[in-house]
Amino acid sequence: MLASEFSENLKKYADLIIHVGLNLGKGQRLAIINLSTAGVQLHAAPLVREITCSAFQAGAEDVEVFWGDEAINLLRYENASEKVIARYPSWQVKGIMDIIESGGAVLTIRSNNPDLLGNIDPDLLSKAQAAYWEAVNPILEKTGSNTVNWCVTSASSPDWAPRVFPLASPEEAYENLWQAIFQITRVDQPDPGAAWEAHIKELESRSQYLEAKQYAKFHYQAPGTDLTVGLPKGHLWGSARDLAKNGIDFVANLPTEEIFTLPHREQAEGIVRATLPLPYGGITIEDFSLTFENGRVVKVNAKKGEKVLQNLIDTDEGAARLGEAALVPHNSPIAQRGHLFYNPLIDENAACHLAIGKAYPFTLKGGDSLSKEEFAEHGGNNSLIHIDFMIGSNEMDIDGITEDGTVEPVMRDGLWAFDVY
Amino acid sequence: MLASEFSENLKKYADLIIHVGLNLGKGQRLAIINLSTAGVQLHAAPLVREITCSAFQAGAEDVEVFWGDEAINLLRYENASEKVIARYPSWQVKGIMDIIESGGAVLTIRSNNPDLLGNIDPDLLSKAQAAYWEAVNPILEKTGSNTVNWCVTSASSPDWAPRVFPLASPEEAYENLWQAIFQITRVDQPDPGAAWEAHIKELESRSQYLEAKQYAKFHYQAPGTDLTVGLPKGHLWGSARDLAKNGIDFVANLPTEEIFTLPHREQAEGIVRATLPLPYGGITIEDFSLTFENGRVVKVNAKKGEKVLQNLIDTDEGAARLGEAALVPHNSPIAQRGHLFYNPLIDENAACHLAIGKAYPFTLKGGDSLSKEEFAEHGGNNSLIHIDFMIGSNEMDIDGITEDGTVEPVMRDGLWAFDVY
Repeated sequence: MLASEFSENLKKYADLIIHVGLNLGKGQRLAIINLSTAGVQLHAAPLVREITCSAFQAGAEDVEVFWGDEAINLLRYENASEKVIARYPSWQVKGIMDIIESGGAVLTIRSNNPDLLGNIDPDLLSKAQAAYWEAVNPILEKTGSNTVNWCVTSASSPDWAPRVFPLASPEEAYENLWQAIFQITRVDQPDPGAAWEAHIKELESRSQYLEAKQYAKFHYQAPGTDLTVGLPKGHLWGSARDLAKNGIDFVANLPTEEIFTLPHREQAEGIVRATLPLPYGGITIEDFSLTFENGRVVKVNAKKGEKVLQNLIDTDEGAARLGEAALVPHNSPIAQRGHLFYNPLIDENAACHLAIGKAYPFTLKGGDSLSKEEFAEHGGNNSLIHIDFMIGSNEMDIDGITEDGTVEPVMRDGLWAFDVY
Repeated sequence: MLASEFSENLKKYADLIIHVGLNLGKGQRLAIINLSTAGVQLHAAPLVREITCSAFQAGAEDVEVFWGDEAINLLRYENASEKVIARYPSWQVKGIMDIIESGGAVLTIRSNNPDLLGNIDPDLLSKAQAAYWEAVNPILEKTGSNTVNWCVTSASSPDWAPRVFPLASPEEAYENLWQAIFQITRVDQPDPGAAWEAHIKELESRSQYLEAKQYAKFHYQAPGTDLTVGLPKGHLWGSARDLAKNGIDFVANLPTEEIFTLPHREQAEGIVRATLPLPYGGITIEDFSLTFENGRVVKVNAKKGEKVLQNLIDTDEGAARLGEAALVPHNSPIAQRGHLFYNPLIDENAACHLAIGKAYPFTLKGGDSLSKEEFAEHGGNNSLIHIDFMIGSNEMDIDGITEDGTVEPVMRDGLWAFDVY
């Protein structure tokens, strides 16, 4: 990639984030953050500056960047006491909440090193992660309920890229990862905005089809997977574009290839095998499966990271139950690339997935106006955490089962089994 | 400079900052900041990481870094409204105050681009600066009164270095500035710690000599300068090392070559010409002189930046009066380098200087236990600002005048005119 081509793509990417992702409104404040690393990584500065330019051009009132540095985070893990490691910078949370409460938008830029904390004691990691979820919960409550327009996107980084492209030199890997990000976010297309409009429309059609069907449950079948998941009455399907409570249409993830709905917190039976590793909290959980009874995980099995996974599921009652069921065809542009990104926000767009933990109230009709208890009575799950894990593959079949027991194919061999045209 | 030599010097510099500058105590928290750029510049990351290592090795409880980016600051100045530009990130102030209130230490790393805001309207700059002083005042109150151990030091940067070394290529300038920083902080000496102990002792001897003299006033004479400054009864001389109220001995500036005392807020008569430009708030004020009557600036004259200087002096009543009188011999290592650093914290060690604005209560006997009003009655000045400007040169003569009118030489041709051995 020539330097000039890179600059041009970076600018197009920044514009896409501001205009399609956040759809930033005139006069809005913008917080640029990365909660999981306690600040946007420093090497993302060239992108952050382009985004700031684009935000001001779009009429932003202000742009405030909350920076962080994984190298410092690692030094804290290696040297500080457990109590200190678990202490999340509360001034960051306060600063971000101030912007949200003023109606401002929130942009996350992820470029996490998935293996940063690979040598840290899993127990310590789990305790720190539990404290992290607690500390950032006020922010996740606001974004998770679409109080304001928000967006999560990625930047290449020298620490992350070599994990994605292990055979390339570090410099090539860094550049390859930027090129991959530009491709999967459609930035390399002549008119990224138009490409996104077409893409969003297709996802909306699929999502409307399934919402009208109101299946009572889904039955997932694949090697190592035989799982039935109930879908509450009035479940809504979401896709790329959401309407925030501040009146702004936005796209919460760039890229996004999924459509998703609300699983019933008490209705999951059987076993499901993850088809992709799960990077979580600085380590990677690999080759794992979960067994459900009455909606609750009763058995955890993992070749790597089992302890961290078990601790994650033990975070609270809701962490052992499902909060999201999402469909992604196996021919999505990200799946077609045929490699992992070791970034759940991207990898979740390569395969059908489920999430344990907190469900989105907006995936239930009238869910936004329910109390937590009422939401739970309707099947909506609550938890401090929300973690996606990938279960899809070209061997995944999914059936939709209606109230009266009719079985209809939704996916076959990982591809859509219904037409919307 | 070889890469290995650079790494070694960077590590020695970090150790010097932790052990001599801050003298960081076991169990202390450490905030790494730069108020004037709303965060430590991102390119200082290699130094910040070494300091973090060194801090943990010294037994720090925690290290928290408040990052900022001048490129984003400039975009805000160019695009945001006056109201927004004047809004300093209050979450940074809160986060830093939280650390200070826990007894933690504060380290400032400066690498400001002195010309960043050269094209911004001076009125806007002055308004933003006034709001800045107001916003950061709680922190300056605490460090200015030595509540905790604190230190101000520097890092080379791609934006700052070319201003210091305009004839070098940008890469050479960046490296030259690092070398200069290592030299003026004695990091390039075989045992920097021992070199600092010897240096601190000499400054202490000079300072004890002058404190015992208790001169009633100083008379400054040089081309363009004929100024008499009263020194209050009980004025104390400070030098490199201070004792913080948390019981820790520390060196507040690296480098430091000055000894300093309290001028009487109502006793300055005559004219003083600055001998070095004054970088302030992103522009450089050049070729200026101030005329004093009854301790107050009554006339400002500057070839460049006069408006910004006048606005600065108009900040509040105390901004037009003196808060510090400092002596630096013209053969100090920094003066001998023969070039400007465009960084007042370094340049102030190249020449005798005065400061307008806030005086340090610890430069008056018993000053720490006085109210602001009582401190003022004894001649101590108060203001939101504290700005040093350089008046020394190889043509500067200073006389000390005792209570009974005896005139004694303190400096001649910019060099010490008394012996302490």
